[in-house]
Amino acid sequence: MPKLIDYADAPPAARAVFDDIKRTRNVADVNNFWKALANDPATLQRTWESVKAVMAPGALDPLVKEMVYVAVSVTNGCGYCTASHTAAARKAGMTEAMFAELMAVVATANATNRLANGYRVPIDKAFEEG
Amino acid sequence: MPKLIDYADAPPAARAVFDDIKRTRNVADVNNFWKALANDPATLQRTWESVKAVMAPGALDPLVKEMVYVAVSVTNGCGYCTASHTAAARKAGMTEAMFAELMAVVATANATNRLANGYRVPIDKAFEEG
Amino acid sequence: MPKLIDYADAPPAARAVFDDIKRTRNVADVNNFWKALANDPATLQRTWESVKAVMAPGALDPLVKEMVYVAVSVTNGCGYCTASHTAAARKAGMTEAMFAELMAVVATANATNRLANGYRVPIDKAFEEG
Amino acid sequence: MPKLIDYADAPPAARAVFDDIKRTRNVADVNNFWKALANDPATLQRTWESVKAVMAPGALDPLVKEMVYVAVSVTNGCGYCTASHTAAARKAGMTEAMFAELMAVVATANATNRLANGYRVPIDKAFEEG
Amino acid sequence: MPKLIDYADAPPAARAVFDDIKRTRNVADVNNFWKALANDPATLQRTWESVKAVMAPGALDPLVKEMVYVAVSVTNGCGYCTASHTAAARKAGMTEAMFAELMAVVATANATNRLANGYRVPIDKAFEEG
Amino acid sequence: MPKLIDYADAPPAARAVFDDIKRTRNVADVNNFWKALANDPATLQRTWESVKAVMAPGALDPLVKEMVYVAVSVTNGCGYCTASHTAAARKAGMTEAMFAELMAVVATANATNRLANGYRVPIDKAFEEG
Repeated sequence: MPKLIDYADAPPAARAVFDDIKRTRNVADVNNFWKALANDPATLQRTWESVKAVMAPGALDPLVKEMVYVAVSVTNGCGYCTASHTAAARKAGMTEAMFAELMAVVATANATNRLANGYRVPIDKAFEEG
Repeated sequence: MPKLIDYADAPPAARAVFDDIKRTRNVADVNNFWKALANDPATLQRTWESVKAVMAPGALDPLVKEMVYVAVSVTNGCGYCTASHTAAARKAGMTEAMFAELMAVVATANATNRLANGYRVPIDKAFEEG
Repeated sequence: MPKLIDYADAPPAARAVFDDIKRTRNVADVNNFWKALANDPATLQRTWESVKAVMAPGALDPLVKEMVYVAVSVTNGCGYCTASHTAAARKAGMTEAMFAELMAVVATANATNRLANGYRVPIDKAFEEG
Repeated sequence: MPKLIDYADAPPAARAVFDDIKRTRNVADVNNFWKALANDPATLQRTWESVKAVMAPGALDPLVKEMVYVAVSVTNGCGYCTASHTAAARKAGMTEAMFAELMAVVATANATNRLANGYRVPIDKAFEEG
Repeated sequence: MPKLIDYADAPPAARAVFDDIKRTRNVADVNNFWKALANDPATLQRTWESVKAVMAPGALDPLVKEMVYVAVSVTNGCGYCTASHTAAARKAGMTEAMFAELMAVVATANATNRLANGYRVPIDKAFEEG
Repeated sequence: MPKLIDYADAPPAARAVFDDIKRTRNVADVNNFWKALANDPATLQRTWESVKAVMAPGALDPLVKEMVYVAVSVTNGCGYCTASHTAAARKAGMTEAMFAELMAVVATANATNRLANGYRVPIDKAFEEG
C-alpha cells in the first residue's frame, strides 16, 4: 500500500502543507491521511486548501461542519474518516449527547431515503420552488 | 407505483399519525412521503415516531439536524429527501450561505472519504481511543 | 442517450437473446433495459445469461430472489431497477403486505448499517467462525 | 471508540432492552452492536423496537427477512452487519446453497443497477402503474 | 431549487470562472452544473480549479480521465454527471465500443465488490506490500 | 466466514476455473477472492467468465480497464477489491503518477456528483441526445 510519508522525509512542497496543517489545527503532527497524500504533493496541497476553506468558521461553525463530515463518512462507511472526524468533532466541542443524536439522525435519514426510493415518492410541488 | 393516500381516504390509524405530523410541524397537510407510507400504517407510525424523536430539539437543535439530514440525502442521491429536507432546513432557519457551506462540506467529505479508501490509510493510534 | 433497440431493428445475436428472454419470462416484448443493452450484443448476452441463471428456481425460489433484487435496487437508489423488479416481484407472487414488510426491513437495515459504522462496532468473536 | 457496555454495567433502561433481546432471540448475551448502542439508551430502545417489529414473522418469514438484511449489508459494505446477519440467517435456516444463491443475486443486481444508470434506461410505461 | 445563473446575471467573480471554463473547454456557454454553482462563487471557483487541474493531460490523458469520471458517476447513480461526462468523454474521443466496454467493466466491478464483501475475503498478503 | 478453498481441495469444476485463471493471468496461484468463490463453483465459473471477457483487450486496453476497476472499488469502499485491483493495475503498467491522477479524478468525481445532487441540477438539453 502507499507508504506514509513523515515530515522528515517529505519534499519541500509537502512540508509546506504539513506546516500549514499543523499551524491551522494547532497540532504537533499531521494525521496519517495527510502522510499518505504526501505521495502526491499536488493532491495534498489541493485537498488541504479545500478542507481548510470549507471547514473554516462561516455561516456554519466548525463544530457543525465536523458533525456533517462525520455524517457523510458514516453514511459512506469510511472507517478512517469516521474515526478521524469523530475525534475532530470532539475536539471542536461535540459532547457524547451530541454524538448520540447525530448518529440517530444519520441512521434515520438512511432509512427514510430508502423508503422514498422504494415507494417511488414524487416530489411535492411545494419543493420544486426551492 | 404505490398510490399516495390523502387524509380523506386514510384509515383511522394513518389519520392519527397525519394529525400528529401536522400538529408537530404546524402544517396544513403532510408531504407525499407520508401519504405513500400510509399504504402501510405500521411503518407509517413507526417511521414518524422515529423521525419525531430524533429530530426534536436536544443537544443538537432542529436546524442542525435538518442540515445533517440534507447531507445524508445528498450523499445518497435521494432526490425526494434532498428536496423535502432542504425545504425543511430553510423553514428551520437555514440561509443560502449556510446551504452553500453545507454543500461544500458534503462534497469535500465525499472526496476525502475516497482518498482515504484509495490510499488505504491506516487509522491513527490516537483515534483508536475515541 | 443510447437508443433503445426494438426487436425489429436488432441484429441477429440480439434477437436470439430477446427470443430467450421472452420465452423464459413468457412475455410479448422485452423491457427497455434489454433494448438499451442491445447496443452491445456481447453485454446483452452475458447479462441475460447471468440473470437467467441466478434468478432461476433453486435453494431460493424466484419470488424471494426478486424481492432481494428490489432490496438491492432500493438501497442503491436505482429508479429503473426498483420499478422493473417490483413489477417482476408482484408477477412472481409478492403481495402488498410482503412489499410493505420488505421495505421496512430494507429501511431498518440501512439504518443499523450506519449505526454499526458510526459506533465502530467490532465483530463479535462468534461471527468470525462463519 | 465508543465503549461496549456489558449487561453488568448497563443502566436499568438499557438492561430492560437487553433482557427483551435475549428473551426474543433466545440467546445468553447480546451482540456487540447492542452493547455499543447502550451508550445511548433512547436509540438502543428505539432501534430494538424497530428491529423486533420488522423482523417478526409476517407476510415474510424471518429467514427471508434475514437474507434481505444480508443483501442490504453486503451492498453497503457493512462488515459488522454482514457478519452478524449472515450468522442470524444461518440460525434461521439459511443453508450454504441459499447463501450462495443470495450472493449471486446481490452481485447481479448491483451490476444491472449500474447498467441501467449508465445506459440511462427510461422506465417502461407498464411499470408506471405499479 | 437553486436557480441557474446565466453569464449575463452572474457576479464578476463567477463570470471570471465562466470565462475560464469556456476558454479551457472551447465552448460557447457553460453547463447547468456551473450555472447552479454560481450561487456560491467561492465553491464555483474552487470546484472549477480542482476539475481543471485533475482533468488536464498528464500521466493519464483526458479521455481516460473522462471515462473514469463516467465510471464513478454511474456507480453512484448521479444522472446529471453520467449525462454530462458521457458527453464530455465522447467529445474527447470515446467511441461506442469504448463506452460499451466501460459499462461492462463498471457493472462487473460493482458485482465483484459485493461478492468480496459477502464472502468476507481477507486481503492476500501479496497485496499488503503495495 | 466462508472458508478459502485451495487448489488441492477444490472440486474438479473449480479446479478447471483455477487453471484458466492461472493460465490467463500467468500466475502460480489464484487470489483469495477466487478461493472464496470456490465455495459455489457455479458462481465461480460465471464470475470468472465475465471478468475474463470484460477485462480482455478491446477498444480499451487492460490497463485502462484495471484503473476503472480501481475507481469503482475505491468509490464503493471495497477494501479487498481496491487492494487486488491496484496490484493488478500496477502489473498492467500503472505508474505511481497514473495512480495519483486516478485517485484525484475519483475524489473529484465523488465530490461533484454530490454537488449536482444537492443543487438539483437539471440535465442540459444538449445531453439528452446522447
